[in-house]
Amino acid sequence: MTRQTPHTPSRFDEIVERRGTDCAKWDLMEPVYGVPAEDGLAMWVADMDFRPPRVVQQALERLAAHGIYGYPAGTRAQDEAVSRWMTERHGWTPDPDHVFTTHGLVNGTGICVDAYTDPGDGVVLFTPVYHAFARVIRAAGREVVECELTLEGDSYVPDFEAWDAQMTGRERMMILCSPHNPGGRVWTRAELEGWAAFAKRHDLVLVSDEIHCDLTMPGQEHLAMTRIEGVADRLVMLTATTKTFNIAGAHIGNVIIADPELRARFASRMGALGISPSSFGLAMATAAMSAEGAAWVDELRAYLDGNRRLFDEGIAAIPGLRSMPLEATYLSWVDFEGLGMSRDEVLERVETQARIAVNHGPTFGKGGDHFLRFNLATPRARVKEAVKRLQAAFADLQ
Amino acid sequence: MTRQTPHTPSRFDEIVERRGTDCAKWDLMEPVYGVPAEDGLAMWVADMDFRPPRVVQQALERLAAHGIYGYPAGTRAQDEAVSRWMTERHGWTPDPDHVFTTHGLVNGTGICVDAYTDPGDGVVLFTPVYHAFARVIRAAGREVVECELTLEGDSYVPDFEAWDAQMTGRERMMILCSPHNPGGRVWTRAELEGWAAFAKRHDLVLVSDEIHCDLTMPGQEHLAMTRIEGVADRLVMLTATTKTFNIAGAHIGNVIIADPELRARFASRMGALGISPSSFGLAMATAAMSAEGAAWVDELRAYLDGNRRLFDEGIAAIPGLRSMPLEATYLSWVDFEGLGMSRDEVLERVETQARIAVNHGPTFGKGGDHFLRFNLATPRARVKEAVKRLQAAFADLQ
Ligand SMILES: Cc1ncc(COP(=O)(O)O)c(C=O)c1O
Ligand SMILES: Cc1ncc(COP(=O)(O)O)c(C=O)c1O
Repeated sequence: MTRQTPHTPSRFDEIVERRGTDCAKWDLMEPVYGVPAEDGLAMWVADMDFRPPRVVQQALERLAAHGIYGYPAGTRAQDEAVSRWMTERHGWTPDPDHVFTTHGLVNGTGICVDAYTDPGDGVVLFTPVYHAFARVIRAAGREVVECELTLEGDSYVPDFEAWDAQMTGRERMMILCSPHNPGGRVWTRAELEGWAAFAKRHDLVLVSDEIHCDLTMPGQEHLAMTRIEGVADRLVMLTATTKTFNIAGAHIGNVIIADPELRARFASRMGALGISPSSFGLAMATAAMSAEGAAWVDELRAYLDGNRRLFDEGIAAIPGLRSMPLEATYLSWVDFEGLGMSRDEVLERVETQARIAVNHGPTFGKGGDHFLRFNLATPRARVKEAVKRLQAAFADLQ
Repeated sequence: MTRQTPHTPSRFDEIVERRGTDCAKWDLMEPVYGVPAEDGLAMWVADMDFRPPRVVQQALERLAAHGIYGYPAGTRAQDEAVSRWMTERHGWTPDPDHVFTTHGLVNGTGICVDAYTDPGDGVVLFTPVYHAFARVIRAAGREVVECELTLEGDSYVPDFEAWDAQMTGRERMMILCSPHNPGGRVWTRAELEGWAAFAKRHDLVLVSDEIHCDLTMPGQEHLAMTRIEGVADRLVMLTATTKTFNIAGAHIGNVIIADPELRARFASRMGALGISPSSFGLAMATAAMSAEGAAWVDELRAYLDGNRRLFDEGIAAIPGLRSMPLEATYLSWVDFEGLGMSRDEVLERVETQARIAVNHGPTFGKGGDHFLRFNLATPRARVKEAVKRLQAAFADLQ
């Protein structure tokens, strides 16, 4: 993998207009945040402003051209592609028969909550963390148990001792976000072993959401939870092609379960809810997990690495701001606490002055208060523009 | 609407090869029924061998060409199109805010079972009826209560008195299939009023699955359950573009609920399960519900009418066979009881000799025993061929 500098031209530099295409990220930033569509920068919703690998677009075009859009034959080809992809990229080989194809991973998480917990049970999250987890848990009438990550230096680390003390015995399931959204951590083997031991100590189903596993920064190696010993009998793996290849609109994701009893419970909910993926999701996901897709991802990772370097430097130049070192994901978690400003004033500067739509920290749960999350998966020129605008909005501090 | 004769050339005459396209109907008929892919006729799965209106294909091509497939902005445009479509075609106007967009109607039915019943509760079906209803009800650990339709002359009619006697008080919900799959009935106002009264008498949530409502035969008028008095406070409407426009692979459907309490319960399950439709389904469904789509449907209905006349004549010429008069849908329900043959011998002749894949009657529940369901939504040449093969397979009876 070669490192890209801002001056190497890249396919990812192309600005593709997304406004007016019914996309959440660009078309809803004005209604949601008041950031003007006209010249606002959309750095919130976690999708990318890039086209997927050509092979994905071709699969979709082929389907479109054929012109008959009836019931698909099933998920076998996609499930086998998942097995190959995980083998080649992540060193574990799921049995295709253990793969459930859901309508994305929020849906997959919701089915887990249904399958493994009862109303009133506790589901443990390690916060701050991807906001939809808490939303589906609460909507299902379960309790969110927030175990807060500790800031050690620049990064988040687990604190198992503190969390042990928090457990009441009513917890039945935990969801780990690995790599971590929004902190960008690639958890170490020791940390993952710690979580596995925590799940065992408290007899929890361990749901490991690894949707960001392909998007590691150079030098980082994601370790799948399946590679940690002694946890297979309580483990549910969530993976997807949607973040990796930017096809979230297809709403397709994988829930992979080796344990027969956990698998049976999940299968029963899948059947009761009539969940089966669309032809479009299946065709695109299957096409993506290919040699061409793999080469594209590596190019993408190098480009994202360039973006985050640029962004981190720009943020570091604003006194009082710190962005977390990004080990994976394209989501930068920026700490505004050092400014000593009120939330309202920070947002006034970011949203009104800099005209940037970002995710607000508190939606990620305990520990998110002083943070904003910036999505860097956009042509580099936009990252530059964002840095320029932020530096201007906070210029009085320099 | 003009009636087509077999000699008027039609766009629906075009044979589009579907084998090898990962489609259930043609690619699974050999594994499921042993009917050879090579020269078998697929007349089972309820999709059509026709391209959708050009406007649908264009919407998909436009999306494919844009090339960024991120999160869609929401369902508003589709929900408004549903409201307009129902107004223009069916004389009722759903509030767009009352429309939930699910991953199709099996999914919609499954969420209803979750939202309105508890494990062990009874859900009433009027059999024979679309097989997936019973499947999701049982998978959810609820009891299927089969109320059998009565054969009166050639057609099914309700028998409320007999059904009243069957109720135990543990029933909480009923699902009506209107128009009726597999019997092809367009229920009359009096019959619908009967069902509404039945739901009230037994205090049931009334789920009205009207997925086939657009596909009526000439002279037939479907009456939406919303147009029956006094049932709005217990009514859940299921509608879709997928049967009408042949886009079942997009897995998208509507659950429309005017009653605030029923709506809140459904919304809560939608949220807990993270259900939101794909960009592809949204774009295609929205494009379909248009003036161009409407003109296409009327042309289609005339063509299907031609197909069923041809098929009915061909079946009537085989002594002992009867097809039900088709008032709606493209699914012909054929009674083989008059032959006095064993099930195995009938299937040997249909599947092995005639090489036709059909749905087996018993999967539709009580009353389906002697029947096979034939899907007529295919170019007329294939319907002719099916008739020829059936007549040959049963030639010894003539
Ligand atoms: C950790 C995590 N899980 C799940 C999702 C959403 O997955 P999907 O679009 O498949 O519902 C996201 C999206 O940002 C995410 O960050
Ligand atoms: C009455 C009825 N409801 C629902 C469906 C399936 O709907 P979907 O494909 O949206 O799950 C069918 C398909 O044949 C049907 O006949």
